[in-house]
Amino acid sequence: MPSAKMTPDAFLELAVQGVPYVGLLDFTVERFDHGAVDIRLPHKDMLLRPGGTICGPAMMALADITLYGVCLSMIGSVSLAVTTDMNIHFLRKPQPGTLIARGRNLKLGRSLFVGEVTIESEHATSPTAHATGTYAIPPGTG
Amino acid sequence: MPSAKMTPDAFLELAVQGVPYVGLLDFTVERFDHGAVDIRLPHKDMLLRPGGTICGPAMMALADITLYGVCLSMIGSVSLAVTTDMNIHFLRKPQPGTLIARGRNLKLGRSLFVGEVTIESEHATSPTAHATGTYAIPPGTG
Amino acid sequence: MPSAKMTPDAFLELAVQGVPYVGLLDFTVERFDHGAVDIRLPHKDMLLRPGGTICGPAMMALADITLYGVCLSMIGSVSLAVTTDMNIHFLRKPQPGTLIARGRNLKLGRSLFVGEVTIESEHATSPTAHATGTYAIPPGTG
Amino acid sequence: MPSAKMTPDAFLELAVQGVPYVGLLDFTVERFDHGAVDIRLPHKDMLLRPGGTICGPAMMALADITLYGVCLSMIGSVSLAVTTDMNIHFLRKPQPGTLIARGRNLKLGRSLFVGEVTIESEHATSPTAHATGTYAIPPGTG
Repeated sequence: MPSAKMTPDAFLELAVQGVPYVGLLDFTVERFDHGAVDIRLPHKDMLLRPGGTICGPAMMALADITLYGVCLSMIGSVSLAVTTDMNIHFLRKPQPGTLIARGRNLKLGRSLFVGEVTIESEHATSPTAHATGTYAIPPGTG
Repeated sequence: MPSAKMTPDAFLELAVQGVPYVGLLDFTVERFDHGAVDIRLPHKDMLLRPGGTICGPAMMALADITLYGVCLSMIGSVSLAVTTDMNIHFLRKPQPGTLIARGRNLKLGRSLFVGEVTIESEHATSPTAHATGTYAIPPGTG
Repeated sequence: MPSAKMTPDAFLELAVQGVPYVGLLDFTVERFDHGAVDIRLPHKDMLLRPGGTICGPAMMALADITLYGVCLSMIGSVSLAVTTDMNIHFLRKPQPGTLIARGRNLKLGRSLFVGEVTIESEHATSPTAHATGTYAIPPGTG
Repeated sequence: MPSAKMTPDAFLELAVQGVPYVGLLDFTVERFDHGAVDIRLPHKDMLLRPGGTICGPAMMALADITLYGVCLSMIGSVSLAVTTDMNIHFLRKPQPGTLIARGRNLKLGRSLFVGEVTIESEHATSPTAHATGTYAIPPGTG
């Protein structure tokens, strides 16, 4: 496997610190290999929703950032790569706690990247959510 | 058309004020009819991402809340209705500014609701994003 | 609205007659305007599934062909435009009978087309299925 | 892992032979374990489309049947379980030849099943398509 095309720190600076609303989530990078990126969303009370579970938008943000990470791990620092579609299935309501998203490459083409993400809760052995999505890569990149 | 099964204020209190991370977005309700709900996301600098456009997670939160509104407009205040899947296509990068999401009912069954949402920018005549999604309705509701 | 970039007959020849498995469905074109295409799937006993309703794969084929039609109505006869993603929600089980799919443009870019399709049954006033999807347009087209 | 709740032959009879349009595809079952089902789509000239690749509707039918198999492997012979949503990403155009779909359980609840499918071509090491989908399980089943 080739090595990742940027560092985890550079990825977080671009993807998270450059987007204040997303930066509030305090994501950390667990793994940042070429085509395989794991992102951790720590527990925060502000993410809870009625029923005592974690709100969907926080999990969608986690899935989106993880897919962005998988893409950039393979093409390097391309800030203008943008999501074109995302599909998410919510499988089980997570208890409050840390979530980990494991993102993997499905296809890297010249103009499109497709990946998938499995979100797990530290409190459960079965997955919490599963997402797939596409990023458009600007022409002339890489 | 029957009237909505709850008020816009009660919906916002349940859906937004009960979820602090979502509450930061300061959504307002433009329309809250039975099966047809429009939600406004005002401009905030914290929603911008590199390239000067609005970040995807904010639009996904907007789509999700709007679908939740369409569902609750028809079944009333059921806090435990939860998203089971959502699919979103990002169509055009919106310039900074207000977004409006127009949600419509596609199908209300006993246990599942399916709806669609079109997100528009105040700066454009063509849509910014389009989403469809499903909510599971707890047994015994309504 | 500009006029369609190809004729309905040329579209059917390319999309249906060139694909024998799809050709078995005997689609006809009800409308072929620029960005708005309606396709009819006539009743056939071979499309039924247990429960006396129409099988999902026939509706997915109908949705896909309709999106292809919307795309080609705007870019002309580009046989190598290919689906990159499709999302479909099945809303109600249709009784045996004719289905009509109404496809509309959501976004036509240089390299991607996104559209939506609503499938209706001649026996019902509410929609049977709803789909959205993306087609990749080969570089240098149009 | 518990054993599958029906036999491969009983599954094929229900899912394929009961649906003539799908039966034309001559699917065979490669694996039929509890929550893990692999289905083979043999080469047929009638599945080709312009460009010499396999048409999307055949791959969507394959994905749908495979998800149905994963569901029934866990709940037994429930003919009225129906697809509520399916999302598919087409990753690479397969050359003519056999396709194999590997379906896995993501979540089995009382009323909903969610699974994922990876479609591979005998001519390639990277996947051809990836799908996720939901089946609704009738009340009172199992």
